Amino acid sequence: MFFASDNWAGAHPKIADGLSAHTAGFASAYGTSDIDRKVGERFNEIFEREVSVFFVGTGTAANSLSLAAFNQPGGVSFMHREAHMLEDECGAPEFLTGGSRLRAVDGPLGRMTAENLEHAMAHFEPESVHSGRPMAVSVTQATEVGTVYSLAELDAISAVAKTRGLPLHMDGARFANALVALDTTPAEMTWKRGVDIVSFGGTKNGCWCAEAVVLFDTSKAREFGFLRKRAAQLFSKSRFIAAQFDAYLADGLWLDNARHSNAMAAKLADAIAASGRVRLAWRPQANEVFAVMPKTTMKELNDAGAVFYPWNTPRSYTDPIGAEETMCRFVTSFATTAEEVDRFGALIA
Amino acid sequence: MFFASDNWAGAHPKIADGLSAHTAGFASAYGTSDIDRKVGERFNEIFEREVSVFFVGTGTAANSLSLAAFNQPGGVSFMHREAHMLEDECGAPEFLTGGSRLRAVDGPLGRMTAENLEHAMAHFEPESVHSGRPMAVSVTQATEVGTVYSLAELDAISAVAKTRGLPLHMDGARFANALVALDTTPAEMTWKRGVDIVSFGGTKNGCWCAEAVVLFDTSKAREFGFLRKRAAQLFSKSRFIAAQFDAYLADGLWLDNARHSNAMAAKLADAIAASGRVRLAWRPQANEVFAVMPKTTMKELNDAGAVFYPWNTPRSYTDPIGAEETMCRFVTSFATTAEEVDRFGALIA
Amino acid sequence: MFFASDNWAGAHPKIADGLSAHTAGFASAYGTSDIDRKVGERFNEIFEREVSVFFVGTGTAANSLSLAAFNQPGGVSFMHREAHMLEDECGAPEFLTGGSRLRAVDGPLGRMTAENLEHAMAHFEPESVHSGRPMAVSVTQATEVGTVYSLAELDAISAVAKTRGLPLHMDGARFANALVALDTTPAEMTWKRGVDIVSFGGTKNGCWCAEAVVLFDTSKAREFGFLRKRAAQLFSKSRFIAAQFDAYLADGLWLDNARHSNAMAAKLADAIAASGRVRLAWRPQANEVFAVMPKTTMKELNDAGAVFYPWNTPRSYTDPIGAEETMCRFVTSFATTAEEVDRFGALIA
Amino acid sequence: MFFASDNWAGAHPKIADGLSAHTAGFASAYGTSDIDRKVGERFNEIFEREVSVFFVGTGTAANSLSLAAFNQPGGVSFMHREAHMLEDECGAPEFLTGGSRLRAVDGPLGRMTAENLEHAMAHFEPESVHSGRPMAVSVTQATEVGTVYSLAELDAISAVAKTRGLPLHMDGARFANALVALDTTPAEMTWKRGVDIVSFGGTKNGCWCAEAVVLFDTSKAREFGFLRKRAAQLFSKSRFIAAQFDAYLADGLWLDNARHSNAMAAKLADAIAASGRVRLAWRPQANEVFAVMPKTTMKELNDAGAVFYPWNTPRSYTDPIGAEETMCRFVTSFATTAEEVDRFGALIA
Repeated sequence: MFFASDNWAGAHPKIADGLSAHTAGFASAYGTSDIDRKVGERFNEIFEREVSVFFVGTGTAANSLSLAAFNQPGGVSFMHREAHMLEDECGAPEFLTGGSRLRAVDGPLGRMTAENLEHAMAHFEPESVHSGRPMAVSVTQATEVGTVYSLAELDAISAVAKTRGLPLHMDGARFANALVALDTTPAEMTWKRGVDIVSFGGTKNGCWCAEAVVLFDTSKAREFGFLRKRAAQLFSKSRFIAAQFDAYLADGLWLDNARHSNAMAAKLADAIAASGRVRLAWRPQANEVFAVMPKTTMKELNDAGAVFYPWNTPRSYTDPIGAEETMCRFVTSFATTAEEVDRFGALIA
Repeated sequence: MFFASDNWAGAHPKIADGLSAHTAGFASAYGTSDIDRKVGERFNEIFEREVSVFFVGTGTAANSLSLAAFNQPGGVSFMHREAHMLEDECGAPEFLTGGSRLRAVDGPLGRMTAENLEHAMAHFEPESVHSGRPMAVSVTQATEVGTVYSLAELDAISAVAKTRGLPLHMDGARFANALVALDTTPAEMTWKRGVDIVSFGGTKNGCWCAEAVVLFDTSKAREFGFLRKRAAQLFSKSRFIAAQFDAYLADGLWLDNARHSNAMAAKLADAIAASGRVRLAWRPQANEVFAVMPKTTMKELNDAGAVFYPWNTPRSYTDPIGAEETMCRFVTSFATTAEEVDRFGALIA
Repeated sequence: MFFASDNWAGAHPKIADGLSAHTAGFASAYGTSDIDRKVGERFNEIFEREVSVFFVGTGTAANSLSLAAFNQPGGVSFMHREAHMLEDECGAPEFLTGGSRLRAVDGPLGRMTAENLEHAMAHFEPESVHSGRPMAVSVTQATEVGTVYSLAELDAISAVAKTRGLPLHMDGARFANALVALDTTPAEMTWKRGVDIVSFGGTKNGCWCAEAVVLFDTSKAREFGFLRKRAAQLFSKSRFIAAQFDAYLADGLWLDNARHSNAMAAKLADAIAASGRVRLAWRPQANEVFAVMPKTTMKELNDAGAVFYPWNTPRSYTDPIGAEETMCRFVTSFATTAEEVDRFGALIA
Repeated sequence: MFFASDNWAGAHPKIADGLSAHTAGFASAYGTSDIDRKVGERFNEIFEREVSVFFVGTGTAANSLSLAAFNQPGGVSFMHREAHMLEDECGAPEFLTGGSRLRAVDGPLGRMTAENLEHAMAHFEPESVHSGRPMAVSVTQATEVGTVYSLAELDAISAVAKTRGLPLHMDGARFANALVALDTTPAEMTWKRGVDIVSFGGTKNGCWCAEAVVLFDTSKAREFGFLRKRAAQLFSKSRFIAAQFDAYLADGLWLDNARHSNAMAAKLADAIAASGRVRLAWRPQANEVFAVMPKTTMKELNDAGAVFYPWNTPRSYTDPIGAEETMCRFVTSFATTAEEVDRFGALIA
C-alpha cells in the first residue's frame, strides 16, 4: 500500500523494455541521435504543431529553465501559493534564473484565480524599477493537490497574462493525469489556451527519468540550447531519455498509465468517503487524494503497512481540522493496484 | 568504427540488466532508498574510508557543483588550459558557482605542472580584493587528451594547493581509465594524494547516466545536499542511478570496461603508429588516441565509415602540422571491438 | 512643502562642508586613507566595541550584501511583509545573494511579531532540501511605515533567530530616527539585542551618499571585503564617503538631524490629527506620517504645492478606507522646516 | 610626489564647488531631478546624438553592467589580457552577468589587435553549446598601460565584432585622456567607430564619484534601468552625481583636466628618459608612465617621498628586465603639478 508519492514507483515495464532495446550500438551524443529526432517529431504530432523539445533530468530543471527562458532583471513570476516551485524546489527557480522572484497567488485548492492574478499584478503597475516587474505566470496542471484547471480557467488566466505580454508556463509534472481528467488534447490544454512553454513530465507517470521542456515558439530554441547546457542539463547519452519517451508516447501508454492512476485515486477516494474513521478532504480530479484523520489513525494505518504522509493544509481549505487530526496526502501511480486500494479500504472501513 | 566519443556507446548489457532488475516495486525517493544506501556503502569500500556520495545527472553538474562546494566571492579555480570545464561546459562552472572564474594553467599534453600552477597562483599574492583569490585546483584524470597524471605529479600539484589551504578537485569523467592505467587504487589516486572531491564518472564507461560527486570531508555533506537540490540535480527516482552504479561497481565491471577500453586504444595507437598515411601524435595512456593526418585522408576515412572528428591541437604539442593536415581524436569504449580496430587498421595500412 | 521622501533633501550644510574640506591633497584609495580609518574608529566608539565597517553606495547594496554575508544555498530570509527589501529593491537581494529567497512575515504596522516569525520558521522544520532553509532574519528600524521596534520586541525576535543559530540583520536606513525615538544607544539597539549586522544609513538623514554595513563579528571582515568588491561597491575615492560620515557623526549632528526630522513628523501628525479634511492613520514614532484623505483632497493639496504621494495601505491596517479615499505618506527630514509644516497645516485646517 | 594612481587625488575644486552648489533645496530622487535631466542633455550634445545615460557608483559597476546589458547564457566577452575587468575587478563582471566568461586577447601594450581578436573568435566557430559563444568585445580607452587605440585600430576591432553581430564596449575609465590624446571628438571615438556602449569615467579625472554608462541604442534604456537597480547602483540622491558631471562637462573642464594630466605624464616621461638611473619602458600617450628600475632605486625613491608602485610587466613587453629590476607605474592626474614632476626629475637625474 504505497501511496507516498508517484515517484516511489519504478519504471513501467514497457518503458524499461524500451530503454533496454536501445542499449546496444552507437549513436551520436547530446541529443542528436535518430531516436532523439524521432521523439522530437512525436512531440510535434502530439501537440499538433511544430514544437521545440528539450530533455532535462528533473522537473525542477524543467520548471526553472522554463522561467529562465523568459528571464528579465527584476522579474517576478506568479504562481499558486502552494506551487511546487514555491514549496519544494529549494529556490532552484530563483537560482537558475539568476535571482528572479516568485510571487504567491491564492485560489481554491491549488488553482489560482484570474481575479487574484489580476490583483497581484496590479501591485506592479505602473512599471517601476523599484518594485520589479511581472515576467511570467505559471500554472501547475494537474495541481499539487490533485485538482485540475478547466480549459475555461486556463483561458481566464491566460488572458490576464497576455494582456500584459507575459508568457504562460505550465508545470506539467502530472500533465497526462490532467489531460485524461479533462478528456482533451495536448494542443487544447496548452497552446490553444495561450500556454507558451510546458514542463512535460514523464517520470511520475512511469518513466525512470524523462522530463522535457516543450517550447511552442521554436525561434527560442537556439537560446534554450545554451540555457540548458549552461545549467548542466544536457545529457551526453541523451537517447536514454529519448528511448523512455519513445516507449512512453507509443500506443497511448502515457494516457493509459494516467487513466489507471486517476482511476485508482478515484477508487481510493471512494473508499475514504465511505470510511467512518477517515474523511475525504475534497474530491480528486487526478491522482492525488487528500484526507483528514486523527493522528492516531494515521499512525495505526502506517503501522499496518500503508505508506503515506501528512501534508500542509492548503490555505484555501477552510473546513475545521481538529487539534488531534491531520491532513494526509495519498498519491496513486501506474503501479498502484486495485487490490492495494481494496486492502487499504478494508483497513479504514 | 565508432571512435567519435565514448558517450556514443549505449549501456553495457550488465548495467542495462541491473537497471531493469530494479524496475518493479516501490522505493523511497530522492536518494533514500535501500539501493541508494547500498551503493553509498559500496563507495566507502572502494575508497577505503567513509565518503559522502551525491548522484548527479551529468559530468558538467559534477564538476560545477564540486567547485560550488568550495565557492568564495572573487574565487578563481585553476585547471589545465584544455580542461573540459574551460573548453566544453558552456560556462556552467561559472554560472553554477555564481560567477567564479576559471584560470588556465599550462602543461604538457593535458597535465598542468606544479611549477606552472605555483606561478599562476603567485599572480594572486599578496591577497587583494581587486585580483580575486584562488579558490580551488582541478585536475582531470585521465586528461582530455588521453594522458594520465602519475601519483607523483598529483602529489606535487596537491602540495601547491595545500600550502595555500586550497581544495583539490579531480574531474574523473574517465576515472576508471586512469585507475587501471596507473594500476593503483581509488584511495591512492585520490585522498591519499590530497584530493578533496571527485567527479566520479560512470557514463562514459558503460552506464546510461551515472555520475557522482564523492566528498571525502563528510562534514560537508549537509551543505552539498542543498547545493545539489538548488541546482536541480536531485533525482526523484534516484534508484535509476543507484542501480546503474550497483551493477557498474559489482564484480569489477567498471575496471574491466576501462581495461578493455584502454586496450582498444593501445591497439588503435599501434595500428596508427604502423600506418604510413596517418601518424600517432602521442602515445595514449587511457582511452583517447590522437593522430595527425591529411584532411583528405580524414575525409576518405570518414567516408569509409570511420567516425571520428578533428580536434584542436593542444598548445603544448609542438611537432609540426602541415597546412593541409589536421589533428584528430579517436575515443574507444567498453563497446569498441578488436575487429573494429582491425578494420580501421586495414583502412590506414 | 516637500514631504515626498527624505531622499529629496540635498546634503546638510555641515556634511557638504565636511566633504569640501577633503577636496584637496592625495590620499590612498579604496578605503585605506587616514580619514577612512578615522571614521572606522568613530564607529567603534559609537557602537562601544570593535566593529568592521564597510562603506557602500546605496541602502539596497547595504541590505543585499548583508544578506550575502550569511548566504546559504536554498536560503530563505525572513522580514516584514512591507520591508523595503521585499517591496522596493527590484530583487537586488535575491540577485546579489545568487538566488536566495525572501519570505514575508506579518505584524502590525511594519513590525513583524516574534510569534509570526516563529510560525513562519516552523514551515521549514524539520530541515529538508526541498523546502530550503532559514538563513537570516531582517528587521527595519525605523520601519517603512514610521514605527519603531521597542528593545523588548527586538529581544523577542532575536530570540527566535538565535534559537536556530540564525543571524539578525537590521535595515537601518533610518537608524538615527529610531535611535532618538527610543532614546537609547547604538549598542543597546543592536548587538546587545543580538543584531549581527546593520545597514547603517546616512543618506536619508543629511548625507549625499553615505551608507555602511556594520559587522559585529569582525572575523567576517575579510570575506565581506571580497563580497563588496565583487558587487562593484568598493569606491576608489572612498574618502568621499568617509568625509561625509566624519561630519555626520561629529558633535551629534546625526542625532540632531534625526531629532529634528522626528519632531517635524510629530508636528505634522498633530496638524493632520487636528484637521477635519484629512485623518491621521496612526501616530508616527519616527519621521514618516501616514494619513487617509479623499483623492480629491490629495489632488488639491498637491496642486497647492504640497509634494507627497499615495502609499499602499499596510495589510495590518484595518480601519475602513473609502473607495474615494487614499492612504498617503509624508516624510520629513533634516531639511523640513516648521514653517513648511505650518503652511501645510493651514492648508488642511 | 603622488604617482600611485589618479584615484589618489581628491576632487577638482570646480567639481567640489559644483556639488556644494546643489546642497540645498529639494529635488526628486532616483535620477529624475532637473539637474539629472540637464546632464542627460549635456551628454547628448557631447556625443552629438541622443544617448541614454545611467549614473553608477564605480567603474567596476559601469563595466560589469555594460556587459550585462548584452548578456547571453554561455556568453564570452573578449578583451585585452591586461584589461581592468580581467585583472582588477574581483570577478564582478562574471558575477553581475550571472556567470558569463571573459577571454583574454593579446596585443602590444594594452591594445588587442583585430587579428588576435579574429583568431580568438574563430575558436567558437561553428557555434556550439559546449564551447559557449561570443557575446561582446571590450576595449579600454585609454588602456591600462597608458596607450591609446587609434581610430583606425578601433575600426578594425569594430569590424571583427560587427561581422558577428557583437556589441563593442569601451571601458572609458580614462575616456577624456584618450580623447585629448587623439585630438578627436567623443562621437568620432565611439559610435562612429561602432562602439555601442561606454563606461564613461569621471572619477579618475577630477570627480569624487561620477561614473556613467552611455548607451547609443536608446531602445535598451528601459532594460538597463532594471539592470542598474537590481545591481544596487541606482542612487537616491542621484543629483550628487549629476552635479559633479554638470561641473565636469562645463566649459571644457574635463578636457582641460585630461590635457593637464597627459602633459604631466609626458613631462614625467621626459624626465625618466633623461635619467641614467631609471629607464622609460615605453612612451606614454595618456596619463600613465611605465619605467624599469633597480628595486633598490625604487625603494630609495619611495623613501624620498615618491609614491608609486611596481606593476606586472605586460606580456607584450619583451625588452629584458634584470632579476634585480622591476617595472613600475606612475599615474598623473589633474592634481599633479609641474613642480612635483620636477622634484621627481631631480631625484632621478
